[in-house]
Amino acid sequence: MKILGIDPGYAIMGYGIVEMKGNHFSVCCHGAITTCAGTEMSLRLKYLYESLTEIIKEHKPEEAAIEELFFNTNSKTAIMVGQARGVAILACTNSGLDISEYTPLQIKQALTGQGRADKKQVQFMVKNILALPEVPSPDDVADALAAAVCHGHSFGSKKKMTDNCRGEI
Amino acid sequence: MKILGIDPGYAIMGYGIVEMKGNHFSVCCHGAITTCAGTEMSLRLKYLYESLTEIIKEHKPEEAAIEELFFNTNSKTAIMVGQARGVAILACTNSGLDISEYTPLQIKQALTGQGRADKKQVQFMVKNILALPEVPSPDDVADALAAAVCHGHSFGSKKKMTDNCRGEI
Repeated sequence: MKILGIDPGYAIMGYGIVEMKGNHFSVCCHGAITTCAGTEMSLRLKYLYESLTEIIKEHKPEEAAIEELFFNTNSKTAIMVGQARGVAILACTNSGLDISEYTPLQIKQALTGQGRADKKQVQFMVKNILALPEVPSPDDVADALAAAVCHGHSFGSKKKMTDNCRGEI
Repeated sequence: MKILGIDPGYAIMGYGIVEMKGNHFSVCCHGAITTCAGTEMSLRLKYLYESLTEIIKEHKPEEAAIEELFFNTNSKTAIMVGQARGVAILACTNSGLDISEYTPLQIKQALTGQGRADKKQVQFMVKNILALPEVPSPDDVADALAAAVCHGHSFGSKKKMTDNCRGEI
């Protein structure tokens, strides 16, 4: 099974597609879609959407996974990253891909066996599980691959993206 | 000139299209696109995107306006609203519409003459400027129409959606 992992951002969107055969993972492709500061946000979002759609079309993953985001920083950043996340989810859905989300804790747990592992440890495991010569860079790419591997491990117990916030906004 | 105003949310997305002739505004259409709690977020985003695209296709606005969002609440909500905002912006851009954003202060200023006007005052002015029999409901619809009127008043001095946050995410 081919799984697309996404680490959404509006300046850098990490992606990675892994192939899972039994318990074995290998990498099909990975990289970062980047957009320039100073470009209108509408064009950045359009570019992210189109690039991701193109990657899906080319590599034909069968499932997608994305990390659930938490921010302790300002809400302006959260809204902007949310926008990028929204178009990434839409690119998957419009391409017929089912997309699941995982908390950072679930991803750490799936890759390292413990939910409080640090970033370096997760990156080390991404490199090892996928037999890569080095840790993928930038971090966004390693994070995207980690989400994909987590989805592979969790297949069958995936979390659907629902919520109960109707009418809050 | 026909202007589409959008008040983005994932449960309720308000929209309104106004026609400006000289200094006179009239309403072409207005309403709310709603999605159900419990439905997968990916499907809610897809529905919002498709509904908004359909409205643009039918009414053919020439410009679009959206309110800049601020949240003092938790970042989880900000991310979810950001996702809805992202697909709304993408629907405009993919339909060939230029989209501008305005701060709440700019919108209040444009409609009431002062930036600290309360919600009721803005709604009263939306009703008056657009010669509506009553204040549009829910609030999201009135807010969307307010953004459209603000854009009409501000035409020529619109703010492009750029930022300088490259590499932050």
